[in-house]
Amino acid sequence: MGNHAIDAQRLTGRLRELGTIGRDADGRLARLAASEADRLGRDRLRSWLADAGLEVVVDRIGNVFGVWTPQGSGGRKPVLIGSHIDTVIDAGIYDGCYGVLSGLEVIQSLKEGGFTPTRPIAVAAFTNEEGVRYAPDMLGSLAFVGGLDLDAALATVGTDGSVFGEELDRIGYAGYAEPGFMAPHAYLELHIEQGPVLDREGVPIGAVQGVQGISWQKVTIEGDANHAGTTPMSMRRDAGQAAARVITFLRGRAVASNTPTVATVGCMSFEPNAINVIPARATFTVDLRDPDEDRLRDEEAALSAFLDRLTAEEEVSVTVERLARFEPVPFDQRIVTMVEDAARDRGLASRRMTSGAGHDAQMLARIAPAAMIFVPCLRGISHSPKEFTADADLVAGANVLLDVVWRLANEDR
Amino acid sequence: MGNHAIDAQRLTGRLRELGTIGRDADGRLARLAASEADRLGRDRLRSWLADAGLEVVVDRIGNVFGVWTPQGSGGRKPVLIGSHIDTVIDAGIYDGCYGVLSGLEVIQSLKEGGFTPTRPIAVAAFTNEEGVRYAPDMLGSLAFVGGLDLDAALATVGTDGSVFGEELDRIGYAGYAEPGFMAPHAYLELHIEQGPVLDREGVPIGAVQGVQGISWQKVTIEGDANHAGTTPMSMRRDAGQAAARVITFLRGRAVASNTPTVATVGCMSFEPNAINVIPARATFTVDLRDPDEDRLRDEEAALSAFLDRLTAEEEVSVTVERLARFEPVPFDQRIVTMVEDAARDRGLASRRMTSGAGHDAQMLARIAPAAMIFVPCLRGISHSPKEFTADADLVAGANVLLDVVWRLANEDR
Repeated sequence: MGNHAIDAQRLTGRLRELGTIGRDADGRLARLAASEADRLGRDRLRSWLADAGLEVVVDRIGNVFGVWTPQGSGGRKPVLIGSHIDTVIDAGIYDGCYGVLSGLEVIQSLKEGGFTPTRPIAVAAFTNEEGVRYAPDMLGSLAFVGGLDLDAALATVGTDGSVFGEELDRIGYAGYAEPGFMAPHAYLELHIEQGPVLDREGVPIGAVQGVQGISWQKVTIEGDANHAGTTPMSMRRDAGQAAARVITFLRGRAVASNTPTVATVGCMSFEPNAINVIPARATFTVDLRDPDEDRLRDEEAALSAFLDRLTAEEEVSVTVERLARFEPVPFDQRIVTMVEDAARDRGLASRRMTSGAGHDAQMLARIAPAAMIFVPCLRGISHSPKEFTADADLVAGANVLLDVVWRLANEDR
Repeated sequence: MGNHAIDAQRLTGRLRELGTIGRDADGRLARLAASEADRLGRDRLRSWLADAGLEVVVDRIGNVFGVWTPQGSGGRKPVLIGSHIDTVIDAGIYDGCYGVLSGLEVIQSLKEGGFTPTRPIAVAAFTNEEGVRYAPDMLGSLAFVGGLDLDAALATVGTDGSVFGEELDRIGYAGYAEPGFMAPHAYLELHIEQGPVLDREGVPIGAVQGVQGISWQKVTIEGDANHAGTTPMSMRRDAGQAAARVITFLRGRAVASNTPTVATVGCMSFEPNAINVIPARATFTVDLRDPDEDRLRDEEAALSAFLDRLTAEEEVSVTVERLARFEPVPFDQRIVTMVEDAARDRGLASRRMTSGAGHDAQMLARIAPAAMIFVPCLRGISHSPKEFTADADLVAGANVLLDVVWRLANEDR
């Protein structure tokens, strides 16, 4: 490879151009899966893929692939680079799009540079990663790896009452290829961190070694709605007080643990929610995440034991509903090391890290050795028009991707 | 007085009868101030007052008085017994009504028993004590003691858009007497506790020595709405976490203090209130009460200092809005002792206590020596159809009122 590098101008130019597609009258960006805006974004991507001389394949769940089959690589498993171009509502321009367009850029720059890897290289844009319009999120990549019944997935009814398969057909992206038509040799995904670690530490490259496990629970605590003025502290059954103790318990534990465990209470409501009435009911969510499954189970058990303690100490009753549970997904250690090596060879600092958010890569890891590369984003802000990554960081990440893809695409087995 | 006693059947019968007035199709009781239901309740009270041979006076703010001027008492200041007959929505039958009907019962039984006190005795039903339809609560008694500009009060617009003075006129209770037309020698109010203390302790009589001071504040804490999965615990500015610390701080302080201080966080909301987003904003109310003004100020200062500490420790910003502040109202110690003496003479246990809720008595205390008598209510429940006090307790309280009123009504000065 020597000093070969991607075309920085072309990459950042395309990223900005894609970011102009799907804006409303107020300038807010939204390309929800299988919407008219998504069609426009996909059309632009498809024309870029075709212009680069790639074969464009769309599968039945709408995933779009651009495949480069260099001379002599026929019959070998391709290296797949992927992410998504659907967005949340009022989105930034980087989330997902950066990974897809970098994949295209890597292929195009290798192709134009006259390089001929021994394996095909493909770039994929997976359908409905964000999950705003249709559930679950990461639907396209999950279907691609065989984790979802295809007909059931196409029958999914969206938050707007639309049927996913019908919408996909309407926008012209219900392809013929069966999901899984391609078995990758390896999978790479380049993404903005969507967290503050790289930005805070001033490190340009994250070598992502896995995706955290996630445990979502809804807790309801019931006490008694007595008069705030006339009920002595000792005679209260205060559901709000009990809920507050859960929050401080979870935080105290996570902070003291010196592990990557994160615990968040994001939703909270009190009933009757009156200034002079002791809360009879507090309902809140608990979001626990950990890269280690045993530790995640320990956190769940500790929460459960603490809720039992509350039942006794606060004389409240507690019910818990499980909302979601995903085990941690470890990535391929060999590829993670390649990312570190590639960064070092380019003179870039890197750190190993675990993804706190979900990504298509965690689905692809079921069928191929996979890893991710993170670049910093300003103050960790994502899913917001304030999402921002400096061009230099975008280019550095894409060049590391280039180097790792090049190595993988020349592996014999 | 010897063994003279009130007519238990008449008192409890009237209480139940008044409790039938103002019920909707579902049986829910509501007599909001100056409503049609309030008119019906007032009409019934007025007919009972007239039947007992009392002079009925209505003042310009709608307070209704039944005055007994025994032979030879002319020109002396009367003993006034009062409370209210307006209710909250979906109310019980005891709150307020018990005090007014007991006042009538005391006068009527003395009158019928041939007793002739040296002072007039009057019973009052004050307008809009509950404050559900018009603000502030205790409006009628506040206006009576001169604490409110009368024209401004009559111009008050209610939660339903109605104008208080117009509604009062419509229901026929806009009287001619100036509020304050009567200067009481002393004021007594008999009320259900609306708290659990007497019921829990099995004590039938509360000798109420004052009303707690109240401090209502609204606190807004602002942090950063970052991703729950990608933001390490050490990099969070979690407004919900900070709010939880305020709740546990207040409770810990109140419990540890070994004083009657009560602290309640009744309202709470998180923003954006999403399961996977760290709360950027937590808004909540703090209700602090204490019978001692210095201690109440200490509690407010401690909260303020804690909020300052949070600002530093949690890197959040905090704003505080004062919603209401009332200093504690001490009652007349001499009358409180009379209540204890009267209970003892009737073989009833009593305890001194402070009212946690507001009452008309705290307004009357501005212009006359005042005190209150509490009776137990089941599990402290009030403002609910479940509000309940046993007949024996109702009768015991009314007899203690009788004895204290008798003593006061025969005082020379």
